[in-house]
Parts: sequence; structure tokens; C-alpha cells
Amino acid sequence: MTAAQTDAAGRLRHLLTLDGLPRAALDALLDRAQALAADARGGTARRHVLAGKAVCTLFFEPSTRTRSSFALAAQRLGADLLAFDASTASTTKGEADLDTLKTLEAMGVHAFVVRHKRDGAVAELAAAAAPGTALVNAGDGRSNHPTQGLLDMLTLRQAKGADFAPLKVAIVGDVRHSRVARSDLHALRALGCGEIRVCGPAALLPDDGILGGCTVTHDLDAALEGVDAVMMLRLQRERMAEGLVDSLEDYHRDYGLTAARLRRAAPDAIVMHPGPMNRGVEISDAVADGPQSRVLAQVANGVAVRMAVLEALLG
Amino acid sequence: MTAAQTDAAGRLRHLLTLDGLPRAALDALLDRAQALAADARGGTARRHVLAGKAVCTLFFEPSTRTRSSFALAAQRLGADLLAFDASTASTTKGEADLDTLKTLEAMGVHAFVVRHKRDGAVAELAAAAAPGTALVNAGDGRSNHPTQGLLDMLTLRQAKGADFAPLKVAIVGDVRHSRVARSDLHALRALGCGEIRVCGPAALLPDDGILGGCTVTHDLDAALEGVDAVMMLRLQRERMAEGLVDSLEDYHRDYGLTAARLRRAAPDAIVMHPGPMNRGVEISDAVADGPQSRVLAQVANGVAVRMAVLEALLG
Amino acid sequence: MTAAQTDAAGRLRHLLTLDGLPRAALDALLDRAQALAADARGGTARRHVLAGKAVCTLFFEPSTRTRSSFALAAQRLGADLLAFDASTASTTKGEADLDTLKTLEAMGVHAFVVRHKRDGAVAELAAAAAPGTALVNAGDGRSNHPTQGLLDMLTLRQAKGADFAPLKVAIVGDVRHSRVARSDLHALRALGCGEIRVCGPAALLPDDGILGGCTVTHDLDAALEGVDAVMMLRLQRERMAEGLVDSLEDYHRDYGLTAARLRRAAPDAIVMHPGPMNRGVEISDAVADGPQSRVLAQVANGVAVRMAVLEALLG
Repeated sequence: MTAAQTDAAGRLRHLLTLDGLPRAALDALLDRAQALAADARGGTARRHVLAGKAVCTLFFEPSTRTRSSFALAAQRLGADLLAFDASTASTTKGEADLDTLKTLEAMGVHAFVVRHKRDGAVAELAAAAAPGTALVNAGDGRSNHPTQGLLDMLTLRQAKGADFAPLKVAIVGDVRHSRVARSDLHALRALGCGEIRVCGPAALLPDDGILGGCTVTHDLDAALEGVDAVMMLRLQRERMAEGLVDSLEDYHRDYGLTAARLRRAAPDAIVMHPGPMNRGVEISDAVADGPQSRVLAQVANGVAVRMAVLEALLG
Repeated sequence: MTAAQTDAAGRLRHLLTLDGLPRAALDALLDRAQALAADARGGTARRHVLAGKAVCTLFFEPSTRTRSSFALAAQRLGADLLAFDASTASTTKGEADLDTLKTLEAMGVHAFVVRHKRDGAVAELAAAAAPGTALVNAGDGRSNHPTQGLLDMLTLRQAKGADFAPLKVAIVGDVRHSRVARSDLHALRALGCGEIRVCGPAALLPDDGILGGCTVTHDLDAALEGVDAVMMLRLQRERMAEGLVDSLEDYHRDYGLTAARLRRAAPDAIVMHPGPMNRGVEISDAVADGPQSRVLAQVANGVAVRMAVLEALLG
Repeated sequence: MTAAQTDAAGRLRHLLTLDGLPRAALDALLDRAQALAADARGGTARRHVLAGKAVCTLFFEPSTRTRSSFALAAQRLGADLLAFDASTASTTKGEADLDTLKTLEAMGVHAFVVRHKRDGAVAELAAAAAPGTALVNAGDGRSNHPTQGLLDMLTLRQAKGADFAPLKVAIVGDVRHSRVARSDLHALRALGCGEIRVCGPAALLPDDGILGGCTVTHDLDAALEGVDAVMMLRLQRERMAEGLVDSLEDYHRDYGLTAARLRRAAPDAIVMHPGPMNRGVEISDAVADGPQSRVLAQVANGVAVRMAVLEALLG
């Protein structure tokens, strides 16, 4: 059982995936996030929006960065904040995930920001939530990370304008295991991106049909040729233990983005990475810290996007 | 040394136990919690009550549920909140529990919500606290969990009315190791409950005189006959390792509350459980999620009760 | 690369060390902390100061006491608070410390309270921070713990007056490994303390020139003779494993402060300890809890000092 993320009137009840989200809904969230950009850096102007509401970060898989971004977003909207680390907590007593959610909901939590190792777990929880409760998927398995997709689109829009039709975008790395890549693909398609190239070693490319319509290549130089944006993905070190990657050195040689390689892209191409970066593996220091990097802009946009999402769901 | 929880004028200074708490004090807390029920679900109406006061959850034994409930209660009263996880923290440096308390008190913490593995530990800390500092016992050893007792009484009162004289209540399970059961017993007696039945395997029944006046049985069917409320207790899995329970299957067969068994109770009997539930062990899914279950009402009442207690101690 | 903690106009941008901090800056922080003493115990009077600003405790080494003190200070100034436990968190993904800082900065964190195992690490991070971002060193390696130095000076000033010229102060214990001792030495010199005596076993005294101008002795009785204040240091138990101390018993016999020994000091001498205390090792219960102890006053002053520092950096 999975939840519908919009109600009968088309209003957003949860944010579970960007897959199938209407373009108008995407645009509205991005417009609102853009309008909130200054408030996302601090200040008290928006404290009334969620005053008296409680937001719980419910993480069944640890993540301090994403949790911190949501925490600041919730605070800047005036919400009460509850951090529930379910990767260590209730599970030690064997409580089922759903009982944890229903218990916190009964305590008066109005929105949950949920991360889970298992694909589809967040949508299942959303399907069981009470009518007034909103869930935001902060990452489930390899499937979805919708607020990351939104912040990437906002970053792209700030650099290249709202019309994605003329854009060529490359997504590079471990697409197979990446919920970030899937959410980016959903969003880029919904926004009408002109050309999407996907590049990585064969072992790290997906076989689930998610690449339909993309140009797929194992050759990074070809993938970069003339693109307007490069979205690098993090290489998890466990890929080596799994035998999917030989060595970090080999990976860097074949799929690491260096300054030299970046010259193949358009001169004003931007570089993105969801973080945390493995410097010297998928990205060189010179690129990570270089003038084309938008990595920190992505982080800043993350707070704005999460404010927009929480406001849309609860405000 | 243990602390008196009321001062010379009868005013509540700490909440350490329901044992010996005058009925008037119990009723006052329950009345106040009932009045706070709406505010316990959110909103800003009561934020002035503890504004500028600091509440510290000081847990020498981990518990995310109880801590979350107190955290929301404190926030909804406007308090500053400090979570001090003493199960990992200062103890790694060998600091004595009392030094931890006195240190945090010196930082301007006005109320402590304390959980401790050792019976009597919270009362000892209360005895050493400064005159203006309030302690709430969030569970000590097997002895006391007074806010759980209060929230159970509130739940019972909402379902059955304030007059407990005609009520028959069954407490089922591992009473021996349960601070919840002890606090419920203290409260049920203080409120004049007509008949209290206690049921569990011999190895899990207490031998400390706490059952005086109760009907004790090892036969669940007999215990349930005609009762108005069933309070199920959690079976800790360590009871098997200790040899007190043979297997979860045996336990469920003999002491698990199923829909079939529940039919022996009064038709409008309610079912309670302090959570987290071991579904399929002490309670079946059908009962846990059934129309007679008040498990989520208990959770909601927990926030209201904790607001009432913090308000009474600090407001 | 290390950061200048003052800008061209002499204004404090970071608080990294008390070494070289002008006396006027020290006095100003102490005066301000004294003025904030009542607000440091609670209340809402200063909530406007940092409203809308975010303070992040970024601890690469765990410490619950210092973090709690800063957390309460930040809340009492109205700041948003983010606790980032970098001792377990991002490092599990191999993110560099600097990327962690820059990421949180991009989220709109305005001040970081940083603890790090490595000497100089906090100053390095400060050097890389954006112009508007302030760092407070909450302890780096053996080098600096400036807010502890400030709170010790405030405690001394409250007991002995602002003129330190006539004062004799003894610092006793593991000076070699103590950032507290170093910050106290920096501050005592800057404030013109008349005589500083340093006492400990040879293996625990520093060899880095920090003791210039101090009277150094291995004889505790001699060190205590007629002093106005004794600053005891914590003995870390790892010193025994390292072979620097034979046994806790020997250490207590030679360097433990007992009531009998304290009689050698001036009759109104005060005793200080940064906590947590090893009772029965470097300090006896009678002294720790006796009338000359200022240990809890130090803790209370810690919140006031940290409010003054955060206010100076961000207010």
C-alpha cells in the first residue's frame, strides 16, 4: 500500500516522490523556495507560519546533513522540533516502524521528515498516517529523495533560467544505487530538460527502466561534451567491497571530474554534487572548490526548498 | 535519603511516586491534564507558562518515547529544552550522577525529567536538589513511573467516568519487573478502584507486598471475566534469557490478549498498553488496533499529563 | 593557516584563544558576563539578542557538559540551536571537517561552537569561514579552552575583586595535557596576577615554555602556602595507562587536595575545578563540597560567559 501524495483537490498532502508530480506543483514549490531564499538564511520573518506545529525528523537510517537542513527549515518557520533517531532508538525495543509513527502522531506531531533504508517504506508509512499528518520523504532506499531533486532544480534554474528545454545535463556516477539521481531524473523530465546524459561504469548503471529517454554512456569525456550542468554522484565506499568498483584510483581515472575534463563542458557549465563529496574520487578539489561549483549553493537552496515544502504541507 | 515530594504546605515540589500521593493531588493533576488536552496537541496558547524556564531530560537509561513526550510537553509550555543523555555521556568520564545533576542545576535548569535503572535513584537526586529545582521521575528501576500511572488513569477516566468504585480492572503480564504496574496500582487504589485483578505467570508476579488487596490469578480467562479495563504489560525479551519465560509462543498462548479472549471482558471494556507493544506476544494485532484499544489515547494523554505536571511544579 | 580572532578595527570576530587577547577585550567580556549573570539563570529578557540567528555546536570530540552550557547560553539569547555531533556523524561518511563546516555555514549557521581533539584545528576552521561567520573554540587538543579561562577569571574576580595584582594562585595537576590550564595561564597573565604557582608531578608538567614566569614545584604543600585560589585540574585515567601516573592512590596522596592540605592556603582561599571531578583522586569530597569550593559558581558563570561571548560575536 502506498499513499497518494495529493488529495482529491490536487493539494499536496505528502511529498514522497517527484515521479508523477505535475509540473505546476513542481514550479510552485520552486517559485516559493526562491521567494524564501533570504528567510532561509535566518531571521524571524516566517516564524508565524508553523508556530504551534511540531515537526519530527524520524530517521531509520542516520544522516546528519539532511536532518540538519530540515531542522533549520522547521525552526525558521517557527515549528517545534523533535529529533527521533530510529536507527538506534525504538528499534532496540523491537517496536515496529508504524507503531513508532503512530505513537509520535498521537503525541501531536504534525509533520514527519522520514528517511528509511527500504524502498517504499516512507510511502507505506504515509498511507497509514492520519488525515492531518504530512510526511516528507527524506530518502528511501535507492528510490526517492524529492527535496534533493527540488534543490538541484532550484540551483539549476538560478544558474540557467527557468526554461530547461535548451539544457544539456549530465548525471555521472553510481546512478544504480542513487535516490538522488532518480529524483533528479524525475524532475528534469517534468521540467522538460532538453537532453539528459547518464554516465557511469556498467556495474553502476540501473537496469530498472529509469533511464528511458536518456543518452547513456560509459565515456565521461563524451558525456561532458558541451553540457550546461554536471551532476556528480557520491561513490559509496561499499561499492568496492561489493566488487562493483575495482579501486578508488581506477574510478577517479575513469569517472572523476577534474578541471581538465570539465573543460569539455560548456564554458559556463555548473557543477553540482549532493554531498558529502569524496574529494579525489568522484570530484577533484579544484572542481569542488572552483568557480563553476554550485555545491554550497545547493546546500543553501536545500533549506529554502524544505521551508517551501513544509509550508505547503502544513502552512 | 529520599525526598518528600510535597512541601510543608502540601504543594508538589517533585513528582517521584504516586504512592501516598493524596487523592486530591491526583484528581487535581488529572483535571488539569484534561483541561490541557487540546493544548497538548499543539498550538501556542500555553507558551507563556514556562517561558524562560529550562527543562532537562536527564536519562541514565535510554528511552526515546518517554523523552519525546516530555520534550513536546515542555516545548508546548514554552520552556527551553536540554536533552542530556547520561546513559552515554558524562558517565564515560566517571562523573557521579549527583555531580551531573548539580552541574546542570548550576547552569540554570529548573526542572529535571529523570529516568534511572536503579530503584530509588531519582528520589535520592531529588533529595539533593536545590530548593527551587523540581524533579519528575520518568521511571526508576521497577519502582515508579508516575506520569504513566497518571496518563493511564486519565485514559480510564475518559472512558469510564471519574468514579472508579464500580470498576473492575485487570493488570496482566510481567508485574514483577514493571514500574508501570506499580504506579498503576498506587493510582487505582488512591482513586478507589472497586476491584483490581493481577494476572501473570508465577515467575513474573511480585513478592514485595505490592499486591495487597488485589485478586491474583495465573489464569487469564478468569482475570478477564467481566472487567471494564485490561492493562497489558510489555514482556521484555530478557525474561527468556533469565529463564522466567519459556518461549514467546508459550507466553502468547497463556497470557497474550487476543480478540477471542477479550470477549470475556465487559462488552465496552477498554484495552491499554504502555507501549512499545510486542505484537503477537502479549497482545494480538487485532486487539492492539481494534475498537477497544486505547493505546494511542494513552500516548496523547501522556503529553497532557506531563504538561500538567510540569506546570504544577514550575508554573 | 590560523585565523586572526579580531578584525582590523580590533573587534572580536572569533574567540579562539586567550593568548594575546588584549586586557581591554578580556575585561569587557568579563564585565558583560557579570552583567548577564541574572539572565544566565533563565528568563526571557535577552531573547531578542540572537533571534533569527543560528548557533551550531560542532563537536568533533564528545562533551555533554560544555555543549549543554553553550546550548543554554544560545537559547537564552534567543538563537536557533543545532547540535551536530561530528564525533560520530559525517565522519562516518569520510567528509572532511572543513566541508562539514562550510556545509553548515551554507545552511545559514551564523556561529559555530567547535571542539576538536587536534591542536589548532578550530583556528584552521575559523580561517576558512566566511566573513560573517563566528567561531568559538570550545576546546582544541591541549591548547585552548578560552571560555573556561574566562569563567575561571569571572569566578576569581567575584571572590577576590578585579585587581589581580595582589593575588597568589596555584594551578595543580596535569598541566601538561590541559587546555584549561593553558587558557587560565593566558588569562591570569593578561589580568596581571601577582604570583602564579604551578604544581604537579614532573611527568605531567609541560615542556613547551608555557610556564614562563610561573613558580614551578612538585610539592603541593609548598604550592598551597598562603595562596588565594587553588585551581585543581582533572586527572584523566588514561595517564595511568600511559605510565605517567603510578596509581590513583599515589596521585591522591601526593597531589590530591584535602581539607587538611587546604589549611595551608589563605583562610579565605577559594577552590576551583573545571569538572567533572574525580572525587578521591585530585580532590576530596570534603573540599569539593566544602565552603571554599566555587565549583558550582564556575558552572553558573560558564553560561554567563558564553552568553557574553556569543553576544559579542553575533549581537
